[in-house]
Amino acid sequence: MTVQSLPEARDLSHHLNDLARNRFPSPLKDIFRQMQRPGIISMAGGLPHPSLFPFVDASVSVYPPNGDLSGPIPPASDRMTLNFQKYPSSKGTVDLSTILQYGSCEGLFPLREWVRKYTLDVYQPAYSNFEILLHEGNTSAWTKVVRLLCEPGDMILCEEFTFPSAMAVWVPLGCKAVPIKLDGQGMRADHLEEVLANWETSHPGLKRPHVMYVVPVGSNPTGSTMQAERRKAIYEICARYDIIIAEDDPYTTLQFPEFDLSAPAAEVVHQSGEDFAKSLVPSFLHYDRDGRVIRLESFSKVISPGARLGYFVCNPLFAERLLRATEVESQTPSGWSQGIIYSLLETWGQAGYLSWLSRLRDVYQSRRDGLCAALAHSFTALPARDYAAGVEGAEGIALYHTGTDPKSIKPDQRPIATFVPPTGGMFLWLSFSLSLAPRFRELVAQGVEDPEKQFMDEFWQALAENLVLLTPGSYYVPWEGKDKITTGARGAAREIGYLRFAFSYEDPEVMAEGIKRMQQVVSKMFD
Amino acid sequence: MTVQSLPEARDLSHHLNDLARNRFPSPLKDIFRQMQRPGIISMAGGLPHPSLFPFVDASVSVYPPNGDLSGPIPPASDRMTLNFQKYPSSKGTVDLSTILQYGSCEGLFPLREWVRKYTLDVYQPAYSNFEILLHEGNTSAWTKVVRLLCEPGDMILCEEFTFPSAMAVWVPLGCKAVPIKLDGQGMRADHLEEVLANWETSHPGLKRPHVMYVVPVGSNPTGSTMQAERRKAIYEICARYDIIIAEDDPYTTLQFPEFDLSAPAAEVVHQSGEDFAKSLVPSFLHYDRDGRVIRLESFSKVISPGARLGYFVCNPLFAERLLRATEVESQTPSGWSQGIIYSLLETWGQAGYLSWLSRLRDVYQSRRDGLCAALAHSFTALPARDYAAGVEGAEGIALYHTGTDPKSIKPDQRPIATFVPPTGGMFLWLSFSLSLAPRFRELVAQGVEDPEKQFMDEFWQALAENLVLLTPGSYYVPWEGKDKITTGARGAAREIGYLRFAFSYEDPEVMAEGIKRMQQVVSKMFD
Repeated sequence: MTVQSLPEARDLSHHLNDLARNRFPSPLKDIFRQMQRPGIISMAGGLPHPSLFPFVDASVSVYPPNGDLSGPIPPASDRMTLNFQKYPSSKGTVDLSTILQYGSCEGLFPLREWVRKYTLDVYQPAYSNFEILLHEGNTSAWTKVVRLLCEPGDMILCEEFTFPSAMAVWVPLGCKAVPIKLDGQGMRADHLEEVLANWETSHPGLKRPHVMYVVPVGSNPTGSTMQAERRKAIYEICARYDIIIAEDDPYTTLQFPEFDLSAPAAEVVHQSGEDFAKSLVPSFLHYDRDGRVIRLESFSKVISPGARLGYFVCNPLFAERLLRATEVESQTPSGWSQGIIYSLLETWGQAGYLSWLSRLRDVYQSRRDGLCAALAHSFTALPARDYAAGVEGAEGIALYHTGTDPKSIKPDQRPIATFVPPTGGMFLWLSFSLSLAPRFRELVAQGVEDPEKQFMDEFWQALAENLVLLTPGSYYVPWEGKDKITTGARGAAREIGYLRFAFSYEDPEVMAEGIKRMQQVVSKMFD
Repeated sequence: MTVQSLPEARDLSHHLNDLARNRFPSPLKDIFRQMQRPGIISMAGGLPHPSLFPFVDASVSVYPPNGDLSGPIPPASDRMTLNFQKYPSSKGTVDLSTILQYGSCEGLFPLREWVRKYTLDVYQPAYSNFEILLHEGNTSAWTKVVRLLCEPGDMILCEEFTFPSAMAVWVPLGCKAVPIKLDGQGMRADHLEEVLANWETSHPGLKRPHVMYVVPVGSNPTGSTMQAERRKAIYEICARYDIIIAEDDPYTTLQFPEFDLSAPAAEVVHQSGEDFAKSLVPSFLHYDRDGRVIRLESFSKVISPGARLGYFVCNPLFAERLLRATEVESQTPSGWSQGIIYSLLETWGQAGYLSWLSRLRDVYQSRRDGLCAALAHSFTALPARDYAAGVEGAEGIALYHTGTDPKSIKPDQRPIATFVPPTGGMFLWLSFSLSLAPRFRELVAQGVEDPEKQFMDEFWQALAENLVLLTPGSYYVPWEGKDKITTGARGAAREIGYLRFAFSYEDPEVMAEGIKRMQQVVSKMFD
C-alpha cells in the first residue's frame, strides 16, 4: 500500500486550546515568498553574515554502525568521520554556514526528509499527510503538546505510574491526572474503557479528558511494553471517545524479548537491522487512521541526550500550530546538534542506523538480563503464576528470601517482592509486599496517615545508608490534586511499595553488587 | 568595590505569576545529594552510558580572536583548534561524555563560571547575588520570562516599535502592549513616567503594568541605543513603580559611535578589547540595586545563531523559578553548543573574546556606515536639526530628492524621509512623510480606514517589484488589542510610514545597489 492511497487525517481542530488558536500566522511569509525572486536584494532579514561565524570547519569521528558495543572504543581504522566545511563543498552536504545560521523552525530540511522516510518504512502510519517537526527532546516536546491542547484544569489520562517531568508540566497549570491501571503490558484497555464510560457519573460536571499521555515502550517507571493487540484496543477506545494520544516513545527501539528465568545467562541473539525493524511492536501511528496520535520521538536514548534533539510525527493541523509556537518560543533545535545527527544518519544510512539500533538494543538487553539475573541470584525467584497464584496483582517473577524452599510456598503466601521483567527501555519496577515488614505493621498500628509512603521513605533511606541508590516509587504517582496525596486518598493498592531500578548506566557486575546490598537491607526489614 | 560589598537583591517574589508559584521543587534533590556518597552504587538515574554514544572525538577549527574580519577565511596557520575527546583527557577540559550526557539544567558549570566572571568584569552589576542560567536564545528566554511573571491579560510596557517575536509570545496569552514613545535614544523616560503616573485615570480598573520588555542596544527595529543617563532615569522610574525590566540585549556589543554625515567614508577606528569594553554603554544591571532586571544575553549575533545559546543574569529567586521551569520544559541547551562555545571562549580567553567582539563591531559599523552613506548618496541628505527644524518628529538625517538645492529648503518643509543613524545592532529605521505621496493623499481622500497601512503595503510591494526587499514597519507595531489595529485607533502619528533595513548580511556595495533601486521607486511615488 502506498502512502498516497491512505486516507488523510480528520479535522481535529476542536482539540486546540485557546492559546494555540490565538497564535498569529507568521507575518514573514510574504517576505519569504519575495526572497525567491531572482536578483532580489534583501535587506529584510536580520541575519549575521556567515563569514562572521568564527568556525571554519569541524570533524567528528564516530563508531561504525555495526560494531560490538560491549567492548572498548573501536579503533581508528574502523571509525567513520563526519566532516563539515564552512561553505557547501558539494551538493547534499550540510555546511556550517547553514546549520549555524537562523534556520527553518521546522528543522533542517534534509534531516526531516531522512526521518520522514524512516517513519514511513519503520512505522507505516495509517494516514497519508503526517508531518515531521523537529524538537528539543521529548520533555520539551510534551510541554509543547500541553500548550497546544490542554486548558488549565483539564484532566489528563495517563498510566497509573508516570514520568514525573511529564507531570511537572501540567501540574502548575492546574491540570490533574486520571491514572489508568497497569498490568505487565502497560495501560489496561478495560480500565480505560471503564473510566471513560462512567465519566459523567464518576466525575459529575467535569469535562471528560481529551488527551492521553503514554510511554508505551519501556514505560518509565514500569519497564512494560504495550503489544499490538493492546494498542489496537486502546486506539479504538480513544477514537470512540475522541481522545488525542501523545505517544512519548524515547525507548521505542529498546524492545527486548521476554526474560527467561530458567536461562538467565542466555546469550543475546543478534538480529540484522532489517529483522530488528520487523521485530518492533508497531507505533500507535500504525493504527492512526484519524491523525489523533502525536508521536514524540527522541535521539536522546539512542544517540545521546546532550544533543537535545527529537521529532514530532503528527497531523498537519497540529504540526502547523506547533510550528507557530516553536517560531516564537524555541525557534529551532541547535544547529550543531541537527547537523551532526543528520550527518551521522546520512553517513550510516538507514540500514546502518537500524543495525546500530539493533546492536544498542542488545547491550540494554544484556543489562536487563544482568539485573534480572542478579535479583534471581540474591533472592529465591519463582514464576508468580505458579507460586503466587493466589496473591492479587502478583505478576511476573516473585522474590522470596534466599534459601526459601519453593515447595514450602503456599499459593496465597505473599512474596517479598514481584516484578515483571522489563520488555523495553531502561527501568525495572519492583513491588514490595509491605505487610511482611514489621516496621510497616508498626506504622499501620500507630495509625500514621500514609504508612506506605512513610515506610518506603525509611526503606529508601536505609538502602542509601547501605550505599545503593534507587528511585522512590512515590515520584511516579500521578498528581490528582491536593486532596489525593496519600495512598489511601488516592484509592491506590494498599500494603505495596515500589522502587525503580535503572539498568542503563552501570555494568551488570556493579548492578549485582548493588542488588546484594539491597538484599542485605531487605533481609533485615522484611519477615 | 568588590561584589561582596554590594547589597543583595530585594525580595521581588510578589511579581511571580501563578504558574511560576505552582511549580514543584524538584524531587530529585535527595537523590543528587546521596549520589555524592563515596562508594555508592546508583541505579537511580536513567542515563545512557557514554560508551553508547557513537561519538569518539571531535575537532573544530576556529578563527583567531583578533584577526581582520572583513577579509577571507584566515589561513590554517592562523587558526586555532577546539578538541574534544570522549573521556576527560586532562583536568578542566570539556569532554563528549559530559556534554552529550544529560546535564545540569543551569547549564555547563565551567561555561556559567566563565560568563559570571565576564558579567562581573564587563557589566559590574549593582547587587551581589546575581545568578547565571543558560538558555536557548533570547526569544526562548523571553518566553520563559513571560511564563514567570505575566498573567493572562497583563499589560506589558514596551517600545513604541518592538520585536514581533517578543509580542507573539504574549499576544496569545491575552496580554497587551503599553507602547512607550521613542526618540533617537529609544524609550523616552518622560513618556514612561507620564503613562505610569496617569495609569489609574487613563486605564481605570486595569492592573498597572509590572513588566517592561526593552531592547536597549541597537533596538529592533529602530537601531537606537539607550545611553547611560536615560537608563538611569528609566531604572529609577521602574524602581519607583516596582517594574521588572526584561533587558533583551543580543546586540549589546554591537555599539557604534555616531555616524558623521560630513565624513561618510571615514575609516573605522579599531579599539583594543579593553578599550572596547570600557566604551560600552552600561547594562541596566549596572544600576540594578534591587535585582529587578532580568538580562537576556545571547551568543546568536556575536558567535552564531544556530548554536541556540544564551544566558540569563537575574536575581536568585527568579533564577530558581526559571530553573524549575527549565527542568521540565527544555532541560538544557544542546551539549554540542555549550561545549563548543565554552571551548571557544576558553581558548580565546576573556581578552581574546573582547578583541573578537571589538573586531566584529568594526565590521557592523562599516556596514552601518555603508548603508547610511548609500542613502546619503542616492538622496540629498541633510541634518534634520538644520533643515527640518520646523518638522515635528524629524530627527537625525533628512532625505530629499536627489538634486535638491539645500538653500531652497524651508524649515517646515517635510523631507521625503528621515532616519537616526543606528548607534547599535543591525537595523536602520526609515520614516517616510506620506503626505508627499500623491497615492497616499488619494487614499486619504477616498476615506480608506487605514491609509498609512495601505499606502505602505503598496509601497513595499512596489519595492519588491523593483527587486529590493525590506521589512514593513507595520510588523513592529505593538499589539494593543483588536480595537486598536489601525493607525488612527492606536493614536499613532499620522502621515508617517516606516521601513526597516537590515545591514547585517549584505555587502555595502550590494546595499548601495538596493538603495538605488529604492530611490527609483521613491522618485516615482513621492513628490
